[in-house]
Amino acid sequence: MIRTIVVGATGYAGSELTRLLIGHPEVEIVALTSRSEAGKPLASLLPQFSGAPLPELTTFDPKSVRADLVFLATENGYAMTVAQDILSQGARIVDLSADFRLHTANDYKDWYGLDHAAPDLLEEAAYGLPELADRSMLSKARIIANPGCYPTASALALALMVRAGLAKPQTLLIDAKSGVSGAGRARIEVDYLFTELTESFKAYGVQKHRHTIEIEQSLGVEALRFTPHLVPMKRGILATCYARPSKSATADELHALYKEAYANEPFVQVRPLGQFPTTREVAHTNRCDIGVWADERAEWLIAISATDNLIKGAAGQAVQNMNLMFGLPETTGLPIVAPV
Amino acid sequence: MIRTIVVGATGYAGSELTRLLIGHPEVEIVALTSRSEAGKPLASLLPQFSGAPLPELTTFDPKSVRADLVFLATENGYAMTVAQDILSQGARIVDLSADFRLHTANDYKDWYGLDHAAPDLLEEAAYGLPELADRSMLSKARIIANPGCYPTASALALALMVRAGLAKPQTLLIDAKSGVSGAGRARIEVDYLFTELTESFKAYGVQKHRHTIEIEQSLGVEALRFTPHLVPMKRGILATCYARPSKSATADELHALYKEAYANEPFVQVRPLGQFPTTREVAHTNRCDIGVWADERAEWLIAISATDNLIKGAAGQAVQNMNLMFGLPETTGLPIVAPV
Amino acid sequence: MIRTIVVGATGYAGSELTRLLIGHPEVEIVALTSRSEAGKPLASLLPQFSGAPLPELTTFDPKSVRADLVFLATENGYAMTVAQDILSQGARIVDLSADFRLHTANDYKDWYGLDHAAPDLLEEAAYGLPELADRSMLSKARIIANPGCYPTASALALALMVRAGLAKPQTLLIDAKSGVSGAGRARIEVDYLFTELTESFKAYGVQKHRHTIEIEQSLGVEALRFTPHLVPMKRGILATCYARPSKSATADELHALYKEAYANEPFVQVRPLGQFPTTREVAHTNRCDIGVWADERAEWLIAISATDNLIKGAAGQAVQNMNLMFGLPETTGLPIVAPV
Amino acid sequence: MIRTIVVGATGYAGSELTRLLIGHPEVEIVALTSRSEAGKPLASLLPQFSGAPLPELTTFDPKSVRADLVFLATENGYAMTVAQDILSQGARIVDLSADFRLHTANDYKDWYGLDHAAPDLLEEAAYGLPELADRSMLSKARIIANPGCYPTASALALALMVRAGLAKPQTLLIDAKSGVSGAGRARIEVDYLFTELTESFKAYGVQKHRHTIEIEQSLGVEALRFTPHLVPMKRGILATCYARPSKSATADELHALYKEAYANEPFVQVRPLGQFPTTREVAHTNRCDIGVWADERAEWLIAISATDNLIKGAAGQAVQNMNLMFGLPETTGLPIVAPV
Repeated sequence: MIRTIVVGATGYAGSELTRLLIGHPEVEIVALTSRSEAGKPLASLLPQFSGAPLPELTTFDPKSVRADLVFLATENGYAMTVAQDILSQGARIVDLSADFRLHTANDYKDWYGLDHAAPDLLEEAAYGLPELADRSMLSKARIIANPGCYPTASALALALMVRAGLAKPQTLLIDAKSGVSGAGRARIEVDYLFTELTESFKAYGVQKHRHTIEIEQSLGVEALRFTPHLVPMKRGILATCYARPSKSATADELHALYKEAYANEPFVQVRPLGQFPTTREVAHTNRCDIGVWADERAEWLIAISATDNLIKGAAGQAVQNMNLMFGLPETTGLPIVAPV
Repeated sequence: MIRTIVVGATGYAGSELTRLLIGHPEVEIVALTSRSEAGKPLASLLPQFSGAPLPELTTFDPKSVRADLVFLATENGYAMTVAQDILSQGARIVDLSADFRLHTANDYKDWYGLDHAAPDLLEEAAYGLPELADRSMLSKARIIANPGCYPTASALALALMVRAGLAKPQTLLIDAKSGVSGAGRARIEVDYLFTELTESFKAYGVQKHRHTIEIEQSLGVEALRFTPHLVPMKRGILATCYARPSKSATADELHALYKEAYANEPFVQVRPLGQFPTTREVAHTNRCDIGVWADERAEWLIAISATDNLIKGAAGQAVQNMNLMFGLPETTGLPIVAPV
Repeated sequence: MIRTIVVGATGYAGSELTRLLIGHPEVEIVALTSRSEAGKPLASLLPQFSGAPLPELTTFDPKSVRADLVFLATENGYAMTVAQDILSQGARIVDLSADFRLHTANDYKDWYGLDHAAPDLLEEAAYGLPELADRSMLSKARIIANPGCYPTASALALALMVRAGLAKPQTLLIDAKSGVSGAGRARIEVDYLFTELTESFKAYGVQKHRHTIEIEQSLGVEALRFTPHLVPMKRGILATCYARPSKSATADELHALYKEAYANEPFVQVRPLGQFPTTREVAHTNRCDIGVWADERAEWLIAISATDNLIKGAAGQAVQNMNLMFGLPETTGLPIVAPV
Repeated sequence: MIRTIVVGATGYAGSELTRLLIGHPEVEIVALTSRSEAGKPLASLLPQFSGAPLPELTTFDPKSVRADLVFLATENGYAMTVAQDILSQGARIVDLSADFRLHTANDYKDWYGLDHAAPDLLEEAAYGLPELADRSMLSKARIIANPGCYPTASALALALMVRAGLAKPQTLLIDAKSGVSGAGRARIEVDYLFTELTESFKAYGVQKHRHTIEIEQSLGVEALRFTPHLVPMKRGILATCYARPSKSATADELHALYKEAYANEPFVQVRPLGQFPTTREVAHTNRCDIGVWADERAEWLIAISATDNLIKGAAGQAVQNMNLMFGLPETTGLPIVAPV
């Protein structure tokens, strides 16, 4: 059994992760922690956990870690301050925050406005998008940076056409849409009230959004356009991704490329040509479904991906990375079929 | 492994059932059937099943059943025409329709408008609400009538106060609210279009609703008031149940009664006194959570229950019944913790 | 032109009121006030007002009121501290808060927990539910207490059967459901976040809710049962109201009573027998639609009413009261037809 | 008073139009027609019209038109068969279908698959997007083609940058999102059921969508990329529009261009630089709000527009066109302020 700690168990990602770990056959949850709610049962805050045998919430002490793996589901800026302590006690880390996602402390400073507290680990950390990574690196990693929700959906949609040289790298455009849970449970602001968001749709972060640099890094391109939007639903991301073709490619060719490359990926389903995924069809699963098209008339390549932002975009991918780190089948404990 | 057939796999209940069976460690799905879609992969109709290894949809032939258990997730009026054939081949049945729920063919005729095709089996069939039933009967049953969604939530809320003699039986009033999936996937009418239902709430079946008689039968009372409503959400039932007290009882006493009686039920969580469940907190699980209160000022006993209409109200309870029939732990393959 | 001031223009009720007043042909808005946002244009906070010519937000000074009518769309406890000052300058008041709704300072203390600051005015204030009130009193009133949202829908549904002696007064039960805007724009709490409420339904205030006493007072009964619920939609109330019959009455008789009594009320539509309103069908209007039924089997009278909580339940009724106070046709400036 | 007929009054656009006309001070509704529901009161089908004095539904007879103006809110392919008859009796036409939107019968054939029945009128018809049209032409037109919902939002967003030569015409990309009412009330298919759409988001028409050609024609460009999406909400369109800059332009310059050009348009609000509209803020109004930005890093010009698809995208714009045709102030009877 893998002994795990979830730091930040009361947030949306943290509680989804806790739920998945409860159902995981090879995991023991040795501690659930929360800065503000220590001493309470998780179920007293989140009644969806009623009846599940879980340890009480405690305060996380990075100096005293008795676990094989620590999941950090905390706000940006925290993981980098505790990672060294955790590692030095022999535990490994999957960090769901952004702290270890960017390659350089400079980029972190530019996009997150913080001096990085552990630049050495930044170098060591592996970026945990298994379908696009060298999995052997992830297996050995002491610390895995779990990708952001938008970057996961965007990179899985665009990477193949970029790598194959079909897309002009300087023309990438991602028009992405997310359910509201992406904002997190701590974002208690008037803008996130039910009444403000239901029956409404909007763009946000139009001028600058932090996931832009992460997607660029993941795809190895320089400056792409990324516009996120907020959908009046709880969970799900749809990334509508565009690129100008660098050479003529038909929809069939594009589709064949994706179909083949992802053929053995249990979590990526490429839809039949002419079909495109909805977020409902992957909700509550660790899947990323993709549909592709080539608009030969207006000269655009198009890839549309759908994920659940809390699962493949956060907690599920964290479990997938854990499975890799500990030599388990990658699908262990992860749902593949979406509910109605 | 229990070899199972799902008849009616493309409806909401049938597809939820199929999803649960895929994740069940002791089940093999030997056939999925659909009257109208035979010959297609389920995933071609319901892409949420993409990537799941499943048999193609076939037509159900009641004369040729090679399975231990047949789930009938079909419209009312069908199960009664095939049950005898299925049983005579040694397979057992969990019927998710209403065909075997009522005690008498007369009642079936009165409330469903159909002559019952198998009145003998009507007598034999066990009503599969495990928490309120004699479980040993369910274990041995050849045919289990899986309860309706409203009756499940209503009976679990009211049975204890009725059985304890705390509630006046002739005063029971159930004001119930359901998500739209309760209408089923075959109800393709203007009234069920998204635009007609979002941002709206209404009562329906005010004059007469078929679940009234089933709840009365389940509670052993004569004439209760039942008013269902439609909530602009996909899944979930909240049953707000009222009864006049037959003797004075405090909220504490009522709460103690429920807390104790359901103490060992893994799927029933009685909330702390003064707390009441939301449908979100039990969504996607086989749970029924209950909160109780005694309004001593206006003289009412109140019990509020929440379930997922597709799980505890249909597919999940069907699996629970299967577990009982085949001697498995009742919780096998059934989720307990609700997602965010 | 009636010169009006809206105090508390940035809340949901205040901004709906402002919107209605902009479209009202006999009204001039001389001031919009906000405690916290004075000095800003309303449109800078609420872009839905972009392009509408409006005065900048100011601080309300109760000592210097140059208007014919002051609408107080403020939190409970404020109106009673400024009403005397406003009146003494010759302006009249429509108060959308609860401060002047209850008959006695004792009740106010019991249910709102505050000592009433203007008990004399409490006696003077007229309760502004025109369809059930003596309209000549409202016409002359210096101060009108605008009813609460639940009490409006509940009283319009139940009053006729109570007044006619058809309902046993001690058996009234109101199971009410409201859209989330009823909580107000200032309720910035985790429980009101979009992600917490969408796809969920719950009861609240089960143990005690302040509107209970207001409905009792409005109906002239002693202790009724009132259970409010929260619907995942923005606006709308459905009140499902029950009473035991005090003498036998058929559905036809009940329907005839309602049909006749409300025949000349432009804002109350009694539905044909057997039909019941949805909240969508009255959204954005000042209407209250009602359907009635007699369940002779279980012995209940039923009246189901639908309103828009922000219009007939707040801002629209305030305008209706203003129309009465200033001798205008009651429907002036008030929408009757609901959008799709 | 303008005597008007609404043909197709029971659809979403037709009923919104009827509602607006009821509130319009210069309009008399002389007939409401419906192919399938003739003989019934509109309120019997759409209870939101209860209490509004309206003529009963009749069958439309194009040979006998006693009106000044006929609104055709019918399916594509019908208007072209009756337009000549209507005009020849001296009535004018606002056609809400696509029949008279395209310049040539060839384009109509290519994108709608129908031979055009009135190619001469196709030439005569004026395209009624007032803010971008020569209004004097609209004033005199006998027949106005009311623009599509997506084309309205898209053209208002992109036209200025295209006309000013700031955008490279061959790079236009429109990623548009619509509420579900855009599909119409006659689209009674499983894909439009509430349960299928709530909590889900998807693209559709990815391979080809009819509005593409209409937008191209409206902007005077050749081949643009247009991808529509379906948002789980009832009404509203957000068009996120992109173009490569043809010369360097800052966000300030782009913003100044829009601010100035639309300064006197009552229905177009250009948001302050850095702010972008939500669909909620224009819902139920005839407004189109626009925010612009220049992404100098990735080299894209961006304009984001929000409309209500049923108002500015259909019924409201039809009334605006009527106002122009009959010499009324353009804003008569049209709401400017959106509700909460």
